[in-house]
Amino acid sequence: MPQYCHIDEPLELESGATLPSLTIAYNTYGTLSPEKDNVIWVMHGLTANSDVADWWPHTVEKGKFLDPEKYFVVCANVLGSCYGTTGPSSINPATGKPWCSDFPKVTIRDMVKCHRILAEKLGIKKIHEMIGVSLGGFQAIEWMVTDPDIADNVMFCATDSSCSPWLAAFNKTMYMAIESDPTYGQPRLDAARKGLATARALALISYRGPFAYNMSQRDSLENSDPFFHRVQTYQEYQGIKLCNRFDVYSYVRICESGDSHNVGRGRGGIRQALQRIKANTLVIGISSDILFPPACLKELSDFIPGSILRVMESDFAHDGFLIEHEKLNTIMQEWRKIR
Amino acid sequence: MPQYCHIDEPLELESGATLPSLTIAYNTYGTLSPEKDNVIWVMHGLTANSDVADWWPHTVEKGKFLDPEKYFVVCANVLGSCYGTTGPSSINPATGKPWCSDFPKVTIRDMVKCHRILAEKLGIKKIHEMIGVSLGGFQAIEWMVTDPDIADNVMFCATDSSCSPWLAAFNKTMYMAIESDPTYGQPRLDAARKGLATARALALISYRGPFAYNMSQRDSLENSDPFFHRVQTYQEYQGIKLCNRFDVYSYVRICESGDSHNVGRGRGGIRQALQRIKANTLVIGISSDILFPPACLKELSDFIPGSILRVMESDFAHDGFLIEHEKLNTIMQEWRKIR
Repeated sequence: MPQYCHIDEPLELESGATLPSLTIAYNTYGTLSPEKDNVIWVMHGLTANSDVADWWPHTVEKGKFLDPEKYFVVCANVLGSCYGTTGPSSINPATGKPWCSDFPKVTIRDMVKCHRILAEKLGIKKIHEMIGVSLGGFQAIEWMVTDPDIADNVMFCATDSSCSPWLAAFNKTMYMAIESDPTYGQPRLDAARKGLATARALALISYRGPFAYNMSQRDSLENSDPFFHRVQTYQEYQGIKLCNRFDVYSYVRICESGDSHNVGRGRGGIRQALQRIKANTLVIGISSDILFPPACLKELSDFIPGSILRVMESDFAHDGFLIEHEKLNTIMQEWRKIR
Repeated sequence: MPQYCHIDEPLELESGATLPSLTIAYNTYGTLSPEKDNVIWVMHGLTANSDVADWWPHTVEKGKFLDPEKYFVVCANVLGSCYGTTGPSSINPATGKPWCSDFPKVTIRDMVKCHRILAEKLGIKKIHEMIGVSLGGFQAIEWMVTDPDIADNVMFCATDSSCSPWLAAFNKTMYMAIESDPTYGQPRLDAARKGLATARALALISYRGPFAYNMSQRDSLENSDPFFHRVQTYQEYQGIKLCNRFDVYSYVRICESGDSHNVGRGRGGIRQALQRIKANTLVIGISSDILFPPACLKELSDFIPGSILRVMESDFAHDGFLIEHEKLNTIMQEWRKIR
């Protein structure tokens, strides 16, 4: 179960908008050492939450890289999400109703601002190891550039130093799908379910890639309806499944935060920004990831002083980081030995 | 300008439905030799038309692989399209209005049936070289399996022997986008423009891939709005552009024909079907194609007796066949020398 950190002060956002107050939902695993030197801070992806043990199987386990017997693992739900941290599904105190589309746009930098507030509240001045995958990687990169002394070690996986045109094209197409649903904009959290389901179906395509789809959704040889493929049912089912745990306004705000990601903005460019990073850095790409192709991870790694790059072989594309937890564990443990 | 072949007889479709009559729009380039031994039959992709010289730049030119001084090039618009061949935008004689969603579903086999009707009308009993790319490749493979004697030489590029779960997932997500538009189903050809625009934006993602997007849509360094990417405008523009030349009902019917593609259906499987092909066969994959990854082309080639496989290096993904016409020309001309 998450814990909650309430801040009864206005939070100024990068856009200039202000939130009247802030709640951060977060989970911790293990025990903070007296020296406070065993903190691992994990940042989650687009639709996940603060319960790492739930969404990242076989990581928060004895002997694994988030071993709760050794480490104090912290994960905070991101600003704009619907899993406890302030977002479009929270109550707007001015109206007594959920914010919905009135919730202001947030950036990755706003999310990092919240992580920093939480770290301060928890009395954590130094993170032993920071881990960010996908949108979590956006936050981790941004945090390390904002505050290069915050962590001794950092791992970025299946992520990028800015939102690429390619990722922005996926996001934009999801917004187009959502905006085609005429209920989008209505002040209720179950608005635009059809649009959200389509956006999710599209996102899954970007996460799974050709090999994973072709392995897991192969049709039976004798298919009586020539137009039917079982993946059609799968796409619909996955769309509905997300609608049952997420609202469209939170989804759009978090995707938009991805659009906002550019570690070089106002800092003389990406290369200059990344050169601020002083921590031991491990960058992991996934061989079949179409959303963040390994070439992008190589560029990211090349710009960070002393960074090590590993490309994890996997047929599971972007979702490889969830599915290939054993391979990832091996890479992490080997890195800990050599760094 | 296309020519038209009218057949005033009912056309029975694979589904059992019947069209009261059939019109096939087709283009020809060059002159049929007295021996009728210089026919190249080209089959077009999803939203193209019969005017190869228009949609496939620098191919129907002297010295290129569709040289009209040497060859008699034929291309027919596919059944279900809106470029002259009978489809949802044609007039339904029973109502005097466009068919729209009442137009029956068609399969790749139905499209091939139409190609065979046209070939017969043109007095073509033997094709010197058949060329099919993408959905055109579906038709070419199907035609070669249906009638292994029809062509002496055949080239399949960026295509597959059946609709993969991966392709069906893209198609299904496009249908979800279209069905989220409440005007879908209305009996007018400009229905569901928002849905169609989204589907097209999604299709473009699958055609261009990460490298092409990242090369051509890079944002300027100083971007005053952190949420803006110029690719957002591009995705919208491309969606609208398709709506101005295509209707949603034709689009859906042609995508569904893609779903229906399975050269092994009723023939004991794909491998057995492909072994019927006797023509000299060249299979071309595009290195960065995410829709039809080179591994799929290799499988296709492996199953065709004596087939030659070439992987064209390109950063332009599926659209590489349109953009890399020079590389393609070189591959084609070399193949003609060695076969």
